[in-house]
Amino acid sequence: MIIFSERINGMYLDIRAAIKEQNKQVIQDVLKEQLAGGADVIDINLGPVKADPIESFVWLAKTVHEVTDKPISVDSAKAKLLSEVIPRVKEAVPDAKLIVNSCTAAPEYMDKLIPVAAATESGIIGLTMDAEGVPGNVEKRIECGATFLMMAMESGIDPDDIYLDPIALPVNAAFKQQEFVIEAIRQLAIVNDPPPHFIIGLSNVSTKCLKNSLLNRTFLTMCLAAGLDAAIMDAADKDLVEAAITTEVLMGKHLYSDDFIKAWRMQKGL
Amino acid sequence: MIIFSERINGMYLDIRAAIKEQNKQVIQDVLKEQLAGGADVIDINLGPVKADPIESFVWLAKTVHEVTDKPISVDSAKAKLLSEVIPRVKEAVPDAKLIVNSCTAAPEYMDKLIPVAAATESGIIGLTMDAEGVPGNVEKRIECGATFLMMAMESGIDPDDIYLDPIALPVNAAFKQQEFVIEAIRQLAIVNDPPPHFIIGLSNVSTKCLKNSLLNRTFLTMCLAAGLDAAIMDAADKDLVEAAITTEVLMGKHLYSDDFIKAWRMQKGL
Repeated sequence: MIIFSERINGMYLDIRAAIKEQNKQVIQDVLKEQLAGGADVIDINLGPVKADPIESFVWLAKTVHEVTDKPISVDSAKAKLLSEVIPRVKEAVPDAKLIVNSCTAAPEYMDKLIPVAAATESGIIGLTMDAEGVPGNVEKRIECGATFLMMAMESGIDPDDIYLDPIALPVNAAFKQQEFVIEAIRQLAIVNDPPPHFIIGLSNVSTKCLKNSLLNRTFLTMCLAAGLDAAIMDAADKDLVEAAITTEVLMGKHLYSDDFIKAWRMQKGL
Repeated sequence: MIIFSERINGMYLDIRAAIKEQNKQVIQDVLKEQLAGGADVIDINLGPVKADPIESFVWLAKTVHEVTDKPISVDSAKAKLLSEVIPRVKEAVPDAKLIVNSCTAAPEYMDKLIPVAAATESGIIGLTMDAEGVPGNVEKRIECGATFLMMAMESGIDPDDIYLDPIALPVNAAFKQQEFVIEAIRQLAIVNDPPPHFIIGLSNVSTKCLKNSLLNRTFLTMCLAAGLDAAIMDAADKDLVEAAITTEVLMGKHLYSDDFIKAWRMQKGL
């Protein structure tokens, strides 16, 4: 699977302070832990930091790129900001692959973000929602996912650069939605060939839940078994990463060996 | 889910010695651990113990029934022996619900065991295999499962007393078969209404594997998400039981509460 590190996010207090103070060391130390855990893509998100968002994103991307040449997922819910940030970040770290995180299937989002992704040869994440908000069922998720996929492909973006996100919601607030997420992945994975990637923001499932690690790793296994192949998650959560590898071994995606965790890490050069 | 305790099995050295010496205490101590972990059904299996199998099964069933009135799953691969043992065990513990573990879809097995299950009002587990052995694909599993289900229902056995077992195989020896098991559960669960139960011998997936607990709990989550609702497993493996409960919470089968593990245990009177 493709592990997007969730940790370089202003929602975390250490990162929030580091962005405000432009403290590279804090960012890079957290980043190194994520890389050691197996992160493939580094998501960067300002969280509640409001001042100079474009400059902050550029600074974060450069700070990350000093340590690793892995792809950088530029994460904001604000379409206009994101459409302005992506070209600036691309200019600052031209040899880094970027991923636009995220678009939706609402026309005003797609019109702004898909052309930017195409122009900068970036990947793009499409949430399976539109202007009406997050669907409360499977069908609308599939409809939004199919719409986004079609629009992105028509703009020349390769399926391998497209990520559909069926939107994981907290189990304590949106009970029953978890099944819809899994079923949407399963159905969208079947009908599209070549398929795009499927991603979720994993920690959403356990926001403010007591047993968050247990919920995260269990839900990740369930989603991977349905066809998920990427997640924004804590790559430093060893139990979580091991659950993911084990699931993929049992799906026949990695060869079995006695110490298949070690084999996976060696293959990734960790 | 319905947890069948796997531990009262002569494959385990402590149980093997206890059967040979008719040492009740050892059996009952292990049994109490399984019950404390959440076992719903007690599987009993002589393992390699060969002497006086009928007497040994009767003794084991009585020893178990002294401690608990939960159903007893009488486990042997030998159809003739099982067809003789079931009536004798039923006679010895008449108020215990029995489960015949296991039959196959081979006529010589079904002819012997289905009538015995029907006559003693027992449950019955049908392995999705026939005289040709364990299928190497999904289709044959479904065919065998459907054949067994039809024959058992025609004999008047209630779907709620029928368990289909798509046969988990060791990942180190039968790589790729795990997906077939999951897909067979999914397809058999969709087409049958009312559905029977679906069960696996969970530990089979990790026989002689280094990371057996991790493999077991990951595979259990994957199978439950596909429609499995029973497993022969170690009910005293806390991480395993917690993975199962968490999966079922995420499937909407148990209400979410902050400490859903504790809530599950309280509901079971543990």
